[in-house]
Amino acid sequence: MGNQEVGVVHTRIERPDSALVDQLRPFGVATVHEAMGGTGLMRPYMRPVFTAAGLCGPAVTVLLQPGDNWMLHVAVEQVRAGDVLVAACTTECEDGYFGELLATSLAARGCRGLVIDGGVRDVAALEQMGFPVFSRAIHSKGTVKSTIGSVNVPVVCANALVNPGDVVVADRDGVVVVPRERLAETVAASTKRDTNEKEKRRRLKEGVLGLDLYEMRGKLEAAGLTYLD
Amino acid sequence: MGNQEVGVVHTRIERPDSALVDQLRPFGVATVHEAMGGTGLMRPYMRPVFTAAGLCGPAVTVLLQPGDNWMLHVAVEQVRAGDVLVAACTTECEDGYFGELLATSLAARGCRGLVIDGGVRDVAALEQMGFPVFSRAIHSKGTVKSTIGSVNVPVVCANALVNPGDVVVADRDGVVVVPRERLAETVAASTKRDTNEKEKRRRLKEGVLGLDLYEMRGKLEAAGLTYLD
Amino acid sequence: MGNQEVGVVHTRIERPDSALVDQLRPFGVATVHEAMGGTGLMRPYMRPVFTAAGLCGPAVTVLLQPGDNWMLHVAVEQVRAGDVLVAACTTECEDGYFGELLATSLAARGCRGLVIDGGVRDVAALEQMGFPVFSRAIHSKGTVKSTIGSVNVPVVCANALVNPGDVVVADRDGVVVVPRERLAETVAASTKRDTNEKEKRRRLKEGVLGLDLYEMRGKLEAAGLTYLD
Amino acid sequence: MGNQEVGVVHTRIERPDSALVDQLRPFGVATVHEAMGGTGLMRPYMRPVFTAAGLCGPAVTVLLQPGDNWMLHVAVEQVRAGDVLVAACTTECEDGYFGELLATSLAARGCRGLVIDGGVRDVAALEQMGFPVFSRAIHSKGTVKSTIGSVNVPVVCANALVNPGDVVVADRDGVVVVPRERLAETVAASTKRDTNEKEKRRRLKEGVLGLDLYEMRGKLEAAGLTYLD
Amino acid sequence: MGNQEVGVVHTRIERPDSALVDQLRPFGVATVHEAMGGTGLMRPYMRPVFTAAGLCGPAVTVLLQPGDNWMLHVAVEQVRAGDVLVAACTTECEDGYFGELLATSLAARGCRGLVIDGGVRDVAALEQMGFPVFSRAIHSKGTVKSTIGSVNVPVVCANALVNPGDVVVADRDGVVVVPRERLAETVAASTKRDTNEKEKRRRLKEGVLGLDLYEMRGKLEAAGLTYLD
Amino acid sequence: MGNQEVGVVHTRIERPDSALVDQLRPFGVATVHEAMGGTGLMRPYMRPVFTAAGLCGPAVTVLLQPGDNWMLHVAVEQVRAGDVLVAACTTECEDGYFGELLATSLAARGCRGLVIDGGVRDVAALEQMGFPVFSRAIHSKGTVKSTIGSVNVPVVCANALVNPGDVVVADRDGVVVVPRERLAETVAASTKRDTNEKEKRRRLKEGVLGLDLYEMRGKLEAAGLTYLD
Repeated sequence: MGNQEVGVVHTRIERPDSALVDQLRPFGVATVHEAMGGTGLMRPYMRPVFTAAGLCGPAVTVLLQPGDNWMLHVAVEQVRAGDVLVAACTTECEDGYFGELLATSLAARGCRGLVIDGGVRDVAALEQMGFPVFSRAIHSKGTVKSTIGSVNVPVVCANALVNPGDVVVADRDGVVVVPRERLAETVAASTKRDTNEKEKRRRLKEGVLGLDLYEMRGKLEAAGLTYLD
Repeated sequence: MGNQEVGVVHTRIERPDSALVDQLRPFGVATVHEAMGGTGLMRPYMRPVFTAAGLCGPAVTVLLQPGDNWMLHVAVEQVRAGDVLVAACTTECEDGYFGELLATSLAARGCRGLVIDGGVRDVAALEQMGFPVFSRAIHSKGTVKSTIGSVNVPVVCANALVNPGDVVVADRDGVVVVPRERLAETVAASTKRDTNEKEKRRRLKEGVLGLDLYEMRGKLEAAGLTYLD
Repeated sequence: MGNQEVGVVHTRIERPDSALVDQLRPFGVATVHEAMGGTGLMRPYMRPVFTAAGLCGPAVTVLLQPGDNWMLHVAVEQVRAGDVLVAACTTECEDGYFGELLATSLAARGCRGLVIDGGVRDVAALEQMGFPVFSRAIHSKGTVKSTIGSVNVPVVCANALVNPGDVVVADRDGVVVVPRERLAETVAASTKRDTNEKEKRRRLKEGVLGLDLYEMRGKLEAAGLTYLD
Repeated sequence: MGNQEVGVVHTRIERPDSALVDQLRPFGVATVHEAMGGTGLMRPYMRPVFTAAGLCGPAVTVLLQPGDNWMLHVAVEQVRAGDVLVAACTTECEDGYFGELLATSLAARGCRGLVIDGGVRDVAALEQMGFPVFSRAIHSKGTVKSTIGSVNVPVVCANALVNPGDVVVADRDGVVVVPRERLAETVAASTKRDTNEKEKRRRLKEGVLGLDLYEMRGKLEAAGLTYLD
Repeated sequence: MGNQEVGVVHTRIERPDSALVDQLRPFGVATVHEAMGGTGLMRPYMRPVFTAAGLCGPAVTVLLQPGDNWMLHVAVEQVRAGDVLVAACTTECEDGYFGELLATSLAARGCRGLVIDGGVRDVAALEQMGFPVFSRAIHSKGTVKSTIGSVNVPVVCANALVNPGDVVVADRDGVVVVPRERLAETVAASTKRDTNEKEKRRRLKEGVLGLDLYEMRGKLEAAGLTYLD
Repeated sequence: MGNQEVGVVHTRIERPDSALVDQLRPFGVATVHEAMGGTGLMRPYMRPVFTAAGLCGPAVTVLLQPGDNWMLHVAVEQVRAGDVLVAACTTECEDGYFGELLATSLAARGCRGLVIDGGVRDVAALEQMGFPVFSRAIHSKGTVKSTIGSVNVPVVCANALVNPGDVVVADRDGVVVVPRERLAETVAASTKRDTNEKEKRRRLKEGVLGLDLYEMRGKLEAAGLTYLD
């Protein structure tokens, strides 16, 4: 699987253990990103097209050409129930690659949603269908079907590397990519972080200060912070 | 009617057949734009100021000066029930040209909404009134009333040419302009496209692939697409 | 209190009369901004992270370093019930400085909300908590705690000067800063403006034109505006 | 000639009197724009790809599809000595539509330069050739040749309407469009303005203040300006 | 001197010791900014309109209204030889407030240059005159003269607070503001930093590594950095 | 070598055959990008900090933390004569990570230049030294040295994947990455393309039209292009 190779469709990809994906599902993007040591985030210009959108699943990847959505149709066939489709482009383009018809087709296959470094349209219909989409733009401009790209090659989407089978998590806080081989450790770290945060939240709610909870006062003094009355 | 001419108000414009406008109303921006062969779209930075906003109607046009909303007051008088007000500016400006008072005045005349290549304010009130506005920005900065522009001259709004009497359609997918003389053909083409899409949607929902529905497999092979196992 | 001085925390600030703050509370950002003669607005890139967010209260200010949220923890201790926290940064940075835990801590102290020229995360949780946040970005990227800044020094936030104790008002139309010493006059001017607008709104609703209500016809003619039939 | 009509090439356009074009040539964009009453400017994102670039001539227009430069080749044939090529696109696209080869071809026909609401490449070569180009981006990304657009239809380029035969002037201050039918009056107004400015420049250089030269003191006082010592 | 107060001209401001300004002059923006502890920078969108531009001098400040350059004419009279004019605006606006005529007038008074959070034009002439300008945009769009602002009040320009008499330094690296009362210490700290850097540069040029020069190896190891062969 | 792994320095990387790198050197970014089938480009926001900058060489990669240039010092030690340093960041940040001192150190090691998805400063000095830098911003804002990243791991820089040892080519047209294993074929394809273009350029210069040279007339007619007189 070459990097951003053009003209090929890999029909067989390694998906992660679905039980592990289900264990990752409850966690938000911020938690997962921190659990991975602060890596894996897409650019913050990737936004949900409707507020309630959220998704978690293994990636089928597609490399698009600018203003050309031909490969999305090719990609649909490679999607299995539970997958997320991740669409990158060889350059920046905000045209409307995706709308209600493609969403209908993906939903029919059990696809959990789309992450696309491009534009989409039929946003009201997508919300009504409850089909989650994260995109860089909302744009009605239609696309052509004339140049091929690839399916299931490694792609760079919104500045994040996505290999087919990596797990993609998206919510109102953004989109994060968990490499397949790091899934188990990320589930564990997310769980630990989440438990840890619950306890912190309880104490902060009671009025304990972060300055005390995190024992910051000494370090701040050492750094030279001065309190003036 | 000169192009972006400054200092004139045309009190008489040709509006399209209102029955035709009503026939266009059910269609979304993406459909109408495709029905016109992919033309007529405004820039995607034009967004509804509240989610449920939508409009369709003949344009009364106004050419504003930057940071100056004087001509909006002049334009109100030219608006008839069913019209949409389309405001362009001689340069880029995001100041808050428009708010609750002007919306009240336009609503009193039966105006269907505003499309403005500038900023607006009182957004919560606009939503409560149900007065649809599509703008490039939300901004409280007030404007002055010192330099004249024009009403009902051809204007370029968010990169689209709008002649008075053209029909403007806007929804969550953006804003599109239908030249008055192309309205009948656009209604026909939108209707045809919509019917066509309904049938496609039905088949895609059943699980038929776009690859088969659109008979793409041969063309993809001819283009050199390779499937690897 | 030096301007954007680094390394100090002022524990004592002068807050405005809380009765005056309560009198300002009903007014929207656009009204307050106009009442101050068109000054005090932050840049329009400052947006609520959920639609219903709104706030009004005296500012505790914090100067952050890029990608470093250490000083937010220091600032929490300086916040009293009714205050708004205003966070500026020594440079542009959209990382996620703030999320559910800090919001929990601020809410526990009766803080009315946050205005931050940076990014935030846990947006769904913030909405659920009803903790208002206005920010330049939504971003999951975490921050470090290694460099000190200041608390309660004058800061420039989104191009507006904010002194500790100034009153900050924010809603869907943006964010505006009322200098503490101008609070009384701004309440008076906002009240007057609001009363004035109610009467105007009533008349515009009845169909009176702004052209007549504001007596613009003569001035427009003097400016050379020509009506063509 | 329909507006932004797709699929046609008009081989016959009305060009302006070349003597008039030559009279306009010495004037800069700012002067011409003011001479036309503040209209006709393209968006300021249109920049010269090398500092010394400048052009003035009648427009041959071309409407491109995104990421597709096929129509540029069609347009070359319609260009005569002295013309400027103006390229608009049906949507926003920064791909590299144009480079050294097309510039060589245009130069061979006596073309005075290109104005394109898209990207270009081979910038060093363009500078070496002395072929002036004004574009929205510099980008190496290549384009395809698969979808037709139009030549010599009215286009909207960087928010300005350009009819074939309109005169386009570009320099380091931007790009301005002079409608063919307004060329004579614009030459006259530019000449007058230029003469006027020369005299003003002389007096300002001697130290006369604009406040006195333009007799502003009374108006400023009337507007309420207060001098404090 | 109220903050961003509208409608006043302060004719008397405290300028810093000109000998100190001369001592600051040799230092670049990056050095001065670091010497002040990382504060005082304007936003990086402020760019020189020609490459060789650079300036250093006490600020005469002006608060402009959007699209209105009236106050620039008022400000000229307050400028003395050696001053820099710093122009802020009550909102964001990229129109061309300033060109050759105003530059001629300022140069006649010995002004060292302009820093403006807006647009300028006649850029080629400015370069030819050698009059340094730092701006957020180059734009031909002209402005009106109808609304007053202020001269010599504190302003926020490109997110930096500038008090009249503060020293402004600008070069290809950006623009930085030195508060008048911090000038002496900033000259001293800049001198020290510069000397220090010269020695470092000498050693780095000889091939000594920063890792050794700054004794970083131990800290990196403590932070957990691992070298793999 | 894990993807964007944090906390490691790979001291041994495979560099490409230097003779092949030398053969690639004469070709521009546009040519190389086309020779690779339209892939490998960084985002067009990556610009040379001075016009004459250009570079070609194998990449040493570094993953930075936002606002923290510690790892640049670590990376310097891994650079050999002929290498290019490619710096990515875990998030978007425009601070000034790099200036004259680091450039001096890199130049002392024979480094051919820097490509950084961040800001740089001391731009005039870099030009004087003739040290090529391509960056997303010019910014004086200094950085800290407190959080580790990595050296010589695969990184995503300005949306392009860069593996250590890949060849990076940059000029006024942008930045492109040639995977090490595709270097030989890219040299061959670039050479072929370049030869091909020379012949085309010769013919276009003589006045042959692209329409004829590329035999487009039939295809355009088939696509429905209509010529109107």
